Amino acid sequence: MASKQTAPIMNQGQGETSYAHNSSIQNAEQNKMKSLIEAVVVELCSNTGTLQPGKMVIVDLGCSTGPNALALVSIAVEAIHAHCLQFQQPSPEVSVLLNDLPENDFNTVVKSLVTLRQSNDPVVVTGITPGSFYERLFTSESVHLVCSSNSLHWLSKAPEDLKTNLIPAYDIDEHSRHERLPIVLEAYAKQYRKDFTLFLKLRAKELVSGGRMIISLLGRRSDIIATKFPFLPEIVAQILCVMVSEVHFNTFFSSMHL
Amino acid sequence: MASKQTAPIMNQGQGETSYAHNSSIQNAEQNKMKSLIEAVVVELCSNTGTLQPGKMVIVDLGCSTGPNALALVSIAVEAIHAHCLQFQQPSPEVSVLLNDLPENDFNTVVKSLVTLRQSNDPVVVTGITPGSFYERLFTSESVHLVCSSNSLHWLSKAPEDLKTNLIPAYDIDEHSRHERLPIVLEAYAKQYRKDFTLFLKLRAKELVSGGRMIISLLGRRSDIIATKFPFLPEIVAQILCVMVSEVHFNTFFSSMHL
Repeated sequence: MASKQTAPIMNQGQGETSYAHNSSIQNAEQNKMKSLIEAVVVELCSNTGTLQPGKMVIVDLGCSTGPNALALVSIAVEAIHAHCLQFQQPSPEVSVLLNDLPENDFNTVVKSLVTLRQSNDPVVVTGITPGSFYERLFTSESVHLVCSSNSLHWLSKAPEDLKTNLIPAYDIDEHSRHERLPIVLEAYAKQYRKDFTLFLKLRAKELVSGGRMIISLLGRRSDIIATKFPFLPEIVAQILCVMVSEVHFNTFFSSMHL
Repeated sequence: MASKQTAPIMNQGQGETSYAHNSSIQNAEQNKMKSLIEAVVVELCSNTGTLQPGKMVIVDLGCSTGPNALALVSIAVEAIHAHCLQFQQPSPEVSVLLNDLPENDFNTVVKSLVTLRQSNDPVVVTGITPGSFYERLFTSESVHLVCSSNSLHWLSKAPEDLKTNLIPAYDIDEHSRHERLPIVLEAYAKQYRKDFTLFLKLRAKELVSGGRMIISLLGRRSDIIATKFPFLPEIVAQILCVMVSEVHFNTFFSSMHL
């Protein structure tokens, strides 16, 4: 029995099957964050201590590619400029940094990212910070606002307990799947607790005092006991199982939190 | 008569005709900068005022792609760690930022760039800053060391005077070429003075007090009068002229300083 782990990367480019053309659900989630981001920006701009010396660093963790990559940071930049115009205070220099795994299609992201840049007042500079958000990405106390939408369900890796014991995330046999569901769910929950704790520790080092973080991710109530495989619709999971078996891998492990 | 301007971008990828496989001359130039970078790093690390609060931002402007992209910044990072080890002083957190035009093959650069990252002490974080170095790239007083090798001969654009008067950089007719050489050279020199002045003004804003800049570029002595087209070997210029005429453009303008 063999298994293989690959990075959870969205389809590149602008084609029919690209993430750029198939991410309207994710965009709808981002739009729900607009008022939250605007409120946080007002707080940050009002706290002159946090903003000294007139700079603000905004990051999106797990930006992916396509139009969604710029959605959250664009809201933040517009909110900063609107606030400063309204209260006639000088705009801070804004540094916009987009993050995703090194395998992401940054060539596409970069071409749209530079449209945010402004050389003259108010200055906006832009950059890419490739890497896992389960590692250090920024220097200490350098980030004012962290945004992340629909990304933190990706774990750093599939749960070790399942891989060691060769327990698949989705067993094609219905009886085995049902019997092992509590073990599978607990393994994913354990990995998530470990990863999310690490994520918070890392960001705590990178955020300035008074910095803010806005995260949106799918979840379910912990008091509702899952009775079936909650990761993907059954039909998709079954298709994945068949595809995996056809390329000589008997098992697949997902690094997506269930 | 038509003309077209495209960004001076190196061939992508890792193939036989890629820049990554055809840039040994540029690498030799970079190696000559090693001792200069090491000396500057010692100065920066010794000046505790400049380094407060324990961070150092190093950038390479015009990094291109392939193994050369990391050469200068790798020398700097190694020099910082070696100096701090030798004098038993804590290493600063280092932020390494690579810059080139948005059309550069950043997907390839990113995959090697992340090998420089270190999550634990001494922390090294990495990023990409896409854009022209004739515009603002970084926030004010945020950069400690700027490196650039073999890039600053690229102008922001071909000289306007030549484009307006339809004077080609290389005239296929030998007599016209010889007669216009002083005009062509002066037009390029004028554009270079303008661009380099702007470059210095921009970097002056971005460098911290006490920051350093190490630039290497090809040049010629101003007291030696050029008697022939100095931009490319005659045979290459002639081939370019023929290629340009075959795709229905009668004239080509280079944005490379002569």
